[in-house]
Amino acid sequence: MLVPSQSWQAKAKAKRSANSAKIPPEWRLSKVDLKKAAEQRDLTGSFIQQYLDADEQAILSQEAVAIVAHVREGDLTAKNVALAFCKAAAISHQINNCLHEIFFSQAVARAEELDRYYQKHGRVVGPLHGLPVSLKDQFHVKGNDTTMGYIGWIDTYEGSNDKELVHKVNSQIVTELLDLGAVLYCKTSLPQTLLFGETVNNIIGRTLNPNNQNLSCGGSSGGEGALQALRGSVVGLGTDIGGSVRETTYPSTVGVLGTSIDAIHLVFSSIMATQPWTKDPNLVPIPWRPDLADEVLARSDAHGRSNGDLPLKLGIYWTDQVVTPQPPIARGLRLVVDAVKKAGHKIVEWEPPDQRTAKRVHLAFLKADGGYDIHKQLNLSGEPLIPELQATFKLKEPLPLPVYQELTIEGRDYEAQYSDYWNSTSDSDGQVVDAVIMPVAPHAAVIPGKFYHTAYTEAINLLDYSVVVIPVTKADKSIDLADPGYKPLNDVDAKNWHAYDPDIYDGAPVGIQIVARKFEEEKVWAIGKIVTQILQSGSFESDV
Amino acid sequence: MLVPSQSWQAKAKAKRSANSAKIPPEWRLSKVDLKKAAEQRDLTGSFIQQYLDADEQAILSQEAVAIVAHVREGDLTAKNVALAFCKAAAISHQINNCLHEIFFSQAVARAEELDRYYQKHGRVVGPLHGLPVSLKDQFHVKGNDTTMGYIGWIDTYEGSNDKELVHKVNSQIVTELLDLGAVLYCKTSLPQTLLFGETVNNIIGRTLNPNNQNLSCGGSSGGEGALQALRGSVVGLGTDIGGSVRETTYPSTVGVLGTSIDAIHLVFSSIMATQPWTKDPNLVPIPWRPDLADEVLARSDAHGRSNGDLPLKLGIYWTDQVVTPQPPIARGLRLVVDAVKKAGHKIVEWEPPDQRTAKRVHLAFLKADGGYDIHKQLNLSGEPLIPELQATFKLKEPLPLPVYQELTIEGRDYEAQYSDYWNSTSDSDGQVVDAVIMPVAPHAAVIPGKFYHTAYTEAINLLDYSVVVIPVTKADKSIDLADPGYKPLNDVDAKNWHAYDPDIYDGAPVGIQIVARKFEEEKVWAIGKIVTQILQSGSFESDV
Repeated sequence: MLVPSQSWQAKAKAKRSANSAKIPPEWRLSKVDLKKAAEQRDLTGSFIQQYLDADEQAILSQEAVAIVAHVREGDLTAKNVALAFCKAAAISHQINNCLHEIFFSQAVARAEELDRYYQKHGRVVGPLHGLPVSLKDQFHVKGNDTTMGYIGWIDTYEGSNDKELVHKVNSQIVTELLDLGAVLYCKTSLPQTLLFGETVNNIIGRTLNPNNQNLSCGGSSGGEGALQALRGSVVGLGTDIGGSVRETTYPSTVGVLGTSIDAIHLVFSSIMATQPWTKDPNLVPIPWRPDLADEVLARSDAHGRSNGDLPLKLGIYWTDQVVTPQPPIARGLRLVVDAVKKAGHKIVEWEPPDQRTAKRVHLAFLKADGGYDIHKQLNLSGEPLIPELQATFKLKEPLPLPVYQELTIEGRDYEAQYSDYWNSTSDSDGQVVDAVIMPVAPHAAVIPGKFYHTAYTEAINLLDYSVVVIPVTKADKSIDLADPGYKPLNDVDAKNWHAYDPDIYDGAPVGIQIVARKFEEEKVWAIGKIVTQILQSGSFESDV
Repeated sequence: MLVPSQSWQAKAKAKRSANSAKIPPEWRLSKVDLKKAAEQRDLTGSFIQQYLDADEQAILSQEAVAIVAHVREGDLTAKNVALAFCKAAAISHQINNCLHEIFFSQAVARAEELDRYYQKHGRVVGPLHGLPVSLKDQFHVKGNDTTMGYIGWIDTYEGSNDKELVHKVNSQIVTELLDLGAVLYCKTSLPQTLLFGETVNNIIGRTLNPNNQNLSCGGSSGGEGALQALRGSVVGLGTDIGGSVRETTYPSTVGVLGTSIDAIHLVFSSIMATQPWTKDPNLVPIPWRPDLADEVLARSDAHGRSNGDLPLKLGIYWTDQVVTPQPPIARGLRLVVDAVKKAGHKIVEWEPPDQRTAKRVHLAFLKADGGYDIHKQLNLSGEPLIPELQATFKLKEPLPLPVYQELTIEGRDYEAQYSDYWNSTSDSDGQVVDAVIMPVAPHAAVIPGKFYHTAYTEAINLLDYSVVVIPVTKADKSIDLADPGYKPLNDVDAKNWHAYDPDIYDGAPVGIQIVARKFEEEKVWAIGKIVTQILQSGSFESDV
């Protein structure tokens, strides 16, 4: 164990200050404004817009596909776009504490370079030319820290002081984004260890939900979500499947988060077009296959209505029978199901193998090394585990290897059973389920400390399935009433049920996940787009 | 530990007898013939043909693609094909001890069923209609044992007595082969544990090399190779990357072995066309991509000569600088390189990251559980480890999980370094190496007990690269002279060099491996075909 030369508290404070100092003075909010923000329930929309001028708002209201189109057509400069997003991110961070790294000057210089290229050659460098992309603080960008929420990683390369590496490395996907023309400007907050459904660490503290400050922004890609809710970003990279960059058995998987479904397509397909597998042997050489998305899209019209030939067949998983979703989520699921049916698609009940098996196996994997890796990182600075994780990741003996290998087999068996179940959904219609509508969690954004049941995502993590998460509605205290007569199924269900409070949740965003099988990213994206079209068409709303 | 109800020796003997009893009396050889075979150096070609009539030989001399064509065109019945191969396999086993399971009557019944289908419908059931396919005894075929070389697995399902499973299961790939029209007739021998480069176990003893009985048939798919050398099969399934069916970190990978390069294409592409990934979630959904093979094939004429536009660029790895290949292998590599150059393709020296790293990591993985799984299987019957493996797999403490996880990372790092090296071969021509020509081992087929250096395959196993192994020539004592003046690089190199004896090796088959990157099966197959065409064109031979 290294002897830290400075207290971890002092290092964290210095890091916070250094980061804030990178915000240009003209974008800094007054103490009065900060106090006002702290007292505000919802920081999004008009609240944050008061700090942005009309030109900036005009840029920030565009979605990713429109932004690259405007820059490509010469209607917007990359620099003006970058400045607008940097300013929005700067204000977002001041009111919402969602950034780990700020590199606006790098971003503006980069945007100017892109503009010069465009002026000189009359064309863009790539499909993301001028698009600001935010990154979870798990990706390396030259010139900047990557802390992963560990104080011991400040001013290091993953804890190492090797001068050849510190601040000298771009992650492969960062190089690809730059090659494609993206503008990188900030890295977003995440929880210590990454293995937590809220965003809190000893460096910056906690990031709350900008839609409703009673609630957490979730995690581990929470800062990314918060920044996008504030429109300080329209597209960025997060990761899923807990596990640090050093855990390879269930490695982190990169995912695209965006304020529009088309942003996800734009960035995902552009990155795949760089053939990243030729550089990283951990990747499978499957390009973005447009046919697989187009086949699905061709089954509906522009409002998501089935064209009759081959309606989507979607499973609905109301509850895992362990922890029942709270009223806003139950309503969100119902709303989607009703709308999808009304649009002429099929809905079938989903009764897969017990999620508790998956949760037990997945959690055992995350804890298998007895906290060895996590404590190695903590020991670099002497910082403690955040209180919320002290019970889970207390240092203990690792699992014996044979037990670990048996777990691997249990996981594979679960995958096989789930796959068999999926295949069994081919009934008289000869059509297997295309994808399944599920809760992401048994609640909308969570009240800090009350994330009791993670099985809805852990099962999908273990299965390594393809997922798109889409927003559906917002919690509404006038509709989503608490039910004091509910008979909980078990203690955890009781805790989750009692955690629901209509007043606290009012206005919280309600999302659902749509799940397809392994390596079906194109398909699940296309289904997400159809469901989004259906929801946006609004024709169903009167019935709900 | 179960208390075995019968000695392991008695069980093994009963199993051997039961298996032999399945050979029809009219196909049994006399004691005189068996004695003659035991004294014979080379059992292939005319030796085994003496026990086959002209009609049988006419069938057995056909390659897989011709067999399915003849059956499809009605020139041959599936039954006659099956009978010829069953008889050849029966004789092969009697003289070469290469079969674990015999199910000729199942095969003939199946062939008759296929013939009836063909007669009734005037068409074949699939692309493998009537093709006899042999299987390493690692695949389950209903009605038969799968022992994997373990006595404790006799009359069980992988050691379990569950009546629902014992003899009731087809492996998924077996179902696919049957759906495609294949005829299954026998399962071939393999070493106890599978983790050994020779074929020997406590059930049937040892399988020798039918080309030269001084030598081993290799392993772990050794019985498969022996049966094909005797032409008791023209195509079958083996596996690579040691590891039992229960070891999931570096799982076994199925591969096709055949007496012709086109047999491999036929079976591999037919199986992939069944979309096996829809049933087994461990598989990656990449179909056989004919374009990737065709692009390569289009770069040469029918004799493998470059058409000038884009010659193949092949690396040559003469030696890993740890153990130098013996003279027959060195000559085989030289022969291929000269022929490939003469055909107008490019050859570049290959200097990859040190194979010792890969060997150390790979071997550590195989031994990571301290022999736990292997001893679990041995304990089912009380049989001991075969003497050759007693030092390697003596039961010991498993690796601590953090050490194991560090190994995983070391393996990934090696993969990344190797991949970076591969990418670095794009020099002024802008073309990276297409594939690399390498030794499979530092010797032709091995003298029992003298397989000292497995790094040439272990490195490729760790990398999970695509490989085709092709025969090149045979050892020739008049050319492949021992070099008593050779200065060995180290002790292992000395042992390997001294193990070479021109008289013992005379006539031994010399093969080489051609290695492409991950998920490049189509490409490596096509390159293997081109190199085979070049070697078969014979135009180069005068120079060697």
